[in-house]
Amino acid sequence: MAKIQVFGHKSPDTDTIASAMAAADLLAQQGLDTEAVAQGKPNQETQYALDHFGLQTLPIIDKATTEEVVLVDHNEAAQSVDNLAEVTVYGIYDHHKFNFQNATPLYITAKPWGSVSTILYYEYLKAGLTIPAKIAGMLVSGLISDTLLLKSPTTTDVDRAALPELAKMAGIDDVDAYGLAMLKAGTDLSSKSDEDLLEGDAKSFTMGDHDFRIGQVNTVDIDEVLKRQADLEKAMKASGYENFLLVITDILNSNSKALYLGDTATAIEKAFGKKLDDNVIDLPGVVSRKKQVVPPLQKQF
Amino acid sequence: MAKIQVFGHKSPDTDTIASAMAAADLLAQQGLDTEAVAQGKPNQETQYALDHFGLQTLPIIDKATTEEVVLVDHNEAAQSVDNLAEVTVYGIYDHHKFNFQNATPLYITAKPWGSVSTILYYEYLKAGLTIPAKIAGMLVSGLISDTLLLKSPTTTDVDRAALPELAKMAGIDDVDAYGLAMLKAGTDLSSKSDEDLLEGDAKSFTMGDHDFRIGQVNTVDIDEVLKRQADLEKAMKASGYENFLLVITDILNSNSKALYLGDTATAIEKAFGKKLDDNVIDLPGVVSRKKQVVPPLQKQF
Repeated sequence: MAKIQVFGHKSPDTDTIASAMAAADLLAQQGLDTEAVAQGKPNQETQYALDHFGLQTLPIIDKATTEEVVLVDHNEAAQSVDNLAEVTVYGIYDHHKFNFQNATPLYITAKPWGSVSTILYYEYLKAGLTIPAKIAGMLVSGLISDTLLLKSPTTTDVDRAALPELAKMAGIDDVDAYGLAMLKAGTDLSSKSDEDLLEGDAKSFTMGDHDFRIGQVNTVDIDEVLKRQADLEKAMKASGYENFLLVITDILNSNSKALYLGDTATAIEKAFGKKLDDNVIDLPGVVSRKKQVVPPLQKQF
Repeated sequence: MAKIQVFGHKSPDTDTIASAMAAADLLAQQGLDTEAVAQGKPNQETQYALDHFGLQTLPIIDKATTEEVVLVDHNEAAQSVDNLAEVTVYGIYDHHKFNFQNATPLYITAKPWGSVSTILYYEYLKAGLTIPAKIAGMLVSGLISDTLLLKSPTTTDVDRAALPELAKMAGIDDVDAYGLAMLKAGTDLSSKSDEDLLEGDAKSFTMGDHDFRIGQVNTVDIDEVLKRQADLEKAMKASGYENFLLVITDILNSNSKALYLGDTATAIEKAFGKKLDDNVIDLPGVVSRKKQVVPPLQKQF
């Protein structure tokens, strides 16, 4: 068995899988005995990328089974393996805010960039190492996924510079076409239950005196999702949250609408400068919960 | 005023001052508006290095006065400025264990190496930037200080490789001679009170059911320090700690003796495999509290 398991956060997305594979390879090229693993099955988008580049899914763990580990795309214990406190964190590659403590000096490479895939691209470069074509393909995919093809406001110039270089290494001629196909593969919502749509990517926030649950789904057809509005509202009520906001994002046109149930409708309307119409509010140009949904709400409450 | 203040931990040592200067310069070369500052006056060793390279002491702060800051050689709030929670941490360069949380993605470069000066040397290299000679001199000094001229067991191969390169850039012909002179400058203990000797570098530890206070002083003559044994014991008793261990380290010969007062003498003797003689225990080859004093005690209790 390898000595160091490398893994991303729970409910893995494409950036987490791509960066686990790349970090394990990068460190192996530098002489470490590593194994990329995942805290769950790949989602449909990630599976599309794996299939495209002819890669197997990663072995699934819920506990680390090596004495040392490397965390990618997360650093908080709540998002990590259950036995994190019992193992030694050798290193971290991440692009999130931090909430990490440990007992020994370690390697950390954190940058406020659009994806951890971008960070790993530059780590290979700085180390003078070659990125295997399939791993470059996964890094392209992770970068596109986290930045919505460079359209999310979390995108930086560093991400924009990395994408064409990685695409070349991966042998992708038309990166926009590949990216749209991959993102679309992740938007087949028909097989998902109402609860899955609401909770698949939901996070809790405290806004003033109010508790908010905010979910987000990506789609190529917002109206298709809103056909399920009555059932989604039933599931929202059943969830018991005081305020539930489901952001439905059109990844082709970089717009969103949000479905809202709760007791602060007026404040929601003020936060976004739009009126709710049958519990739905229009959010033109909005694609990022972190940058475009949470801040105006926090400002309002 | 600069937009980003760069500073190390409270009670600054040579590595903290050197890495604040270097990080401020490195980031300024990359286009940021930075200012190196310190949370206190330089100690005698650091002052020797500053004088040698013709550098001014850094401005002293107790609160950050910029909206953004960069932390070097520390990451824990307890070792940082009082208003850390009110400012944005832009980045961190560190070689300690971590206990850090914040609200926004940031830059972190952490490595388990002997000094932050070593980390910054490689950051300049990777960025393809030139290290100004005086800053190279301070990085030499920080590296020598934290590794006791590469003799501390915290020293890594990376530190060993960096020292001669930095010395060349700084125009230092005989790095051993410079290093010994600098370390000696920090060992003039005659002007220090008994309390200063005990508490200057002391940290608290919990060992099993026992609370330990462990201080360390560097010297070129252990017997000279032990001439003050009676007064040091008086000050230990007055301090009120259950167990006080003062490690007195001969930086020329890489040996230590420790003065101990407390109620677990037998356990101390077992931990180090030596007998206490008039409250003094011989610790041949010991120079690092972190690697050679704390672990055997923790194992014993």
